[in-house]
Amino acid sequence: MKKKELDLLLLPELREILDTKDYKELQEFCESAHPAVIAELISGLTCEELWTVLRNITPALRVEIFSHLDESLQVEIARALRRDELAGLLADMSHDDRADLFKKIPKSLREAVLPAMAMAEREDIRKLAAYQEGTAGAVMTSDYAALSPELTAYQAIERLRQVAPDKETIYYAYVLDRDRKLLGFVSLKDLILAKRDDRVEDIMHGEVISVRVEDDREEVAHKIQKYDLLALPVVNSEGALVGIVTYDDIQDIIEEEATEDFHRFGGLTYKTDGLDLNIREAGFLTMLKKRLPWLLALVFVNIFSGAGIAYYEKTIAAAVSLVFFLPLLIGSGGNAGSQTATLVVRAMAVGDIRMSDWLRLLGREVAVALGIGAVMGAAVYAIGIFRSGPEVAVVVAMAMVVNVLFGSLVGMSLPFLLIRLKLDPAAASAPLIASIADIAGVLIYFGLATWYLKDVIAAA
Amino acid sequence: MKKKELDLLLLPELREILDTKDYKELQEFCESAHPAVIAELISGLTCEELWTVLRNITPALRVEIFSHLDESLQVEIARALRRDELAGLLADMSHDDRADLFKKIPKSLREAVLPAMAMAEREDIRKLAAYQEGTAGAVMTSDYAALSPELTAYQAIERLRQVAPDKETIYYAYVLDRDRKLLGFVSLKDLILAKRDDRVEDIMHGEVISVRVEDDREEVAHKIQKYDLLALPVVNSEGALVGIVTYDDIQDIIEEEATEDFHRFGGLTYKTDGLDLNIREAGFLTMLKKRLPWLLALVFVNIFSGAGIAYYEKTIAAAVSLVFFLPLLIGSGGNAGSQTATLVVRAMAVGDIRMSDWLRLLGREVAVALGIGAVMGAAVYAIGIFRSGPEVAVVVAMAMVVNVLFGSLVGMSLPFLLIRLKLDPAAASAPLIASIADIAGVLIYFGLATWYLKDVIAAA
Repeated sequence: MKKKELDLLLLPELREILDTKDYKELQEFCESAHPAVIAELISGLTCEELWTVLRNITPALRVEIFSHLDESLQVEIARALRRDELAGLLADMSHDDRADLFKKIPKSLREAVLPAMAMAEREDIRKLAAYQEGTAGAVMTSDYAALSPELTAYQAIERLRQVAPDKETIYYAYVLDRDRKLLGFVSLKDLILAKRDDRVEDIMHGEVISVRVEDDREEVAHKIQKYDLLALPVVNSEGALVGIVTYDDIQDIIEEEATEDFHRFGGLTYKTDGLDLNIREAGFLTMLKKRLPWLLALVFVNIFSGAGIAYYEKTIAAAVSLVFFLPLLIGSGGNAGSQTATLVVRAMAVGDIRMSDWLRLLGREVAVALGIGAVMGAAVYAIGIFRSGPEVAVVVAMAMVVNVLFGSLVGMSLPFLLIRLKLDPAAASAPLIASIADIAGVLIYFGLATWYLKDVIAAA
Repeated sequence: MKKKELDLLLLPELREILDTKDYKELQEFCESAHPAVIAELISGLTCEELWTVLRNITPALRVEIFSHLDESLQVEIARALRRDELAGLLADMSHDDRADLFKKIPKSLREAVLPAMAMAEREDIRKLAAYQEGTAGAVMTSDYAALSPELTAYQAIERLRQVAPDKETIYYAYVLDRDRKLLGFVSLKDLILAKRDDRVEDIMHGEVISVRVEDDREEVAHKIQKYDLLALPVVNSEGALVGIVTYDDIQDIIEEEATEDFHRFGGLTYKTDGLDLNIREAGFLTMLKKRLPWLLALVFVNIFSGAGIAYYEKTIAAAVSLVFFLPLLIGSGGNAGSQTATLVVRAMAVGDIRMSDWLRLLGREVAVALGIGAVMGAAVYAIGIFRSGPEVAVVVAMAMVVNVLFGSLVGMSLPFLLIRLKLDPAAASAPLIASIADIAGVLIYFGLATWYLKDVIAAA
């Protein structure tokens, strides 16, 4: 609420400044808060007003604020700009941000703006934009700080001071030989703590943790997190430095990967396609395309449940009251199974468990599931006695124990099986496990009933 | 696989060094890789061997490696140490890490070790350990770098150089007045770029983004992420600086919060209690305690499905073939609903949607759900014709459309309702939505059937 009120007060003030065309005041206004705050505020303006603001402030501030705008808004602005304005904006942006924007704008616009840019920038954009989505190459930036090994600490600091405005970070600097091969790295702290005349090659850390350009971005996030790095160097197959990924980029990666797992586990998107599904922005057709496949597939899986029921139609006709417990029994098996799968899928995602843990975990899961099944079996036995008499109660209680056990073992094993098949464990989604548990539940329940109540059925 | 082989080669080498008691070589061995790597390697040793390694290397390296060990292993080592050894180790640790460890060790050990520590350290540990789990206070560290406003840039760098070894970071330094009130901050980059004689108060950023000590740690993570900060200052109610949270701590917070949401959405842990459920380490009773409540609660919810079925027993007895489609119909409603809830819950967690979006999203959800329902209705109509003739097919198709629509609207609205009730939206778990959809599905299906097939039922 507080934020909203702030915007309501500030937007009219900003519009007034725009009306008076007092661009000095505009600059001051835009400097008065963090660029992220200003970006959020001006997102409420029309596209034209927005560009009027950005055009009339200093280039450094313009690019900072622009980088904090939503991606869809960035694209909208890019499309509204003149070719040379867009070229200028791209030239000022940080290398990874501009490569990302470049990938998002329409092809015709890309072809129009490239000739207006300097050769080196064109090449840089082309290179960064060419890496496959989801790899280290696609998230890295090429504006890292590099040093020669023979510099002294004093010279190195001077060098970093000069290049600072154009670099993503100067807190880590990478030491390269003539072929840009990565020899080591020094932090600005190392340089500050060193003696003036210490040489970079003597101070630098030679055992550099790095990733290859084609490595998965999850690997990048994992390494930065594990080693508490500010930035991680990315090298090509020759060991030459091609970029770095900074700590702030992996915060978004961690969140996006968690969202992807969450969505897949919820039975959305049956495959990874690099597009995330944003419920605020996704259109009608995107939604349909993402949601229907699983739902339709599960309908066909559920036909087997129906077939199971059809097979036992005689049992059902003889004791219709059995159907009372059907949703409860198949639901419990599915719920127990998706609980287990939830734990396993998430633990796999954060690297807590590995393939080799399966057998040990399975053994314990049998014990836990039997414990849960026993308590739940007792609960439904009581309901069964009350509702349909002792014979049905026994069947219901037995079916509950077996269902919970079966569901839990499926929930435990399916993620491991998917990994073995080189698929995403999160595809062991809750709806899929529920559907499998439904089929098994029907067969277990009516199978037990047919066996245990054979006298009742024969009498019908 | 590669990692495993490495350990297999290195562990015997390390054990050999321990046997020869060549502690110079031990130091070199432990310096040869990142502390996180060494920590992982020595986790394979016995507790006694492990401490022999740590005791015989330099204190700085000891504390670095120790901080990278698993928490449970840290506690195990702490319990095995002599009182003075533990006090020494705690004294060297970073302030947030040692407060965390302190909270984890048994009370008797805490009481034993406190007198062996220096007064200032004792106070610091007590203060940090006193903050409630999940707040900014509980994740912050008190070893930040502070500067006086009247220092020159040169003096400030000199000061940071002196204090660097004891500080979590020197890349951000906080400018405090005599009452430790937070006036602003400077980055090391600002200081390096400034002229020698520029005064800190003139360079510093006065508009500091900060959090209060009692703020939620999610708020901390959100701010660091939004403003791309290396560290975020934490102030008390008087505006005095009491600590900072650094970027690397929030990476774990983002992951833990995602795990918590994932677990709750999967129908585990019905309330937040600050304990995370680790499938590798949780014992039998913890598992039961976390998993049973929801499962049992849902059994009682599902009794209403049973009651719905009992109410329509006459309809079922007249057309037993209707039961064939029951799992399929109620499953589809639940699946569609949990898809929608998945999207909403995750979007809320990352701040993509707010309370005010509900009505707009609901409107679009009706359109999407009707689209999905139409396709799925057509599919089950075909199956219905084939299996039970045109009359049942019409009922099944109608029930499918209504079920998918109802399930989707529940999935869309329940998370918003929970927020309005000040509960966690992730508690709108997939199993809960499935159970609600089950009840509605039974009533919708058999209700429609009773109405549409009244002639068939009357004839039976």
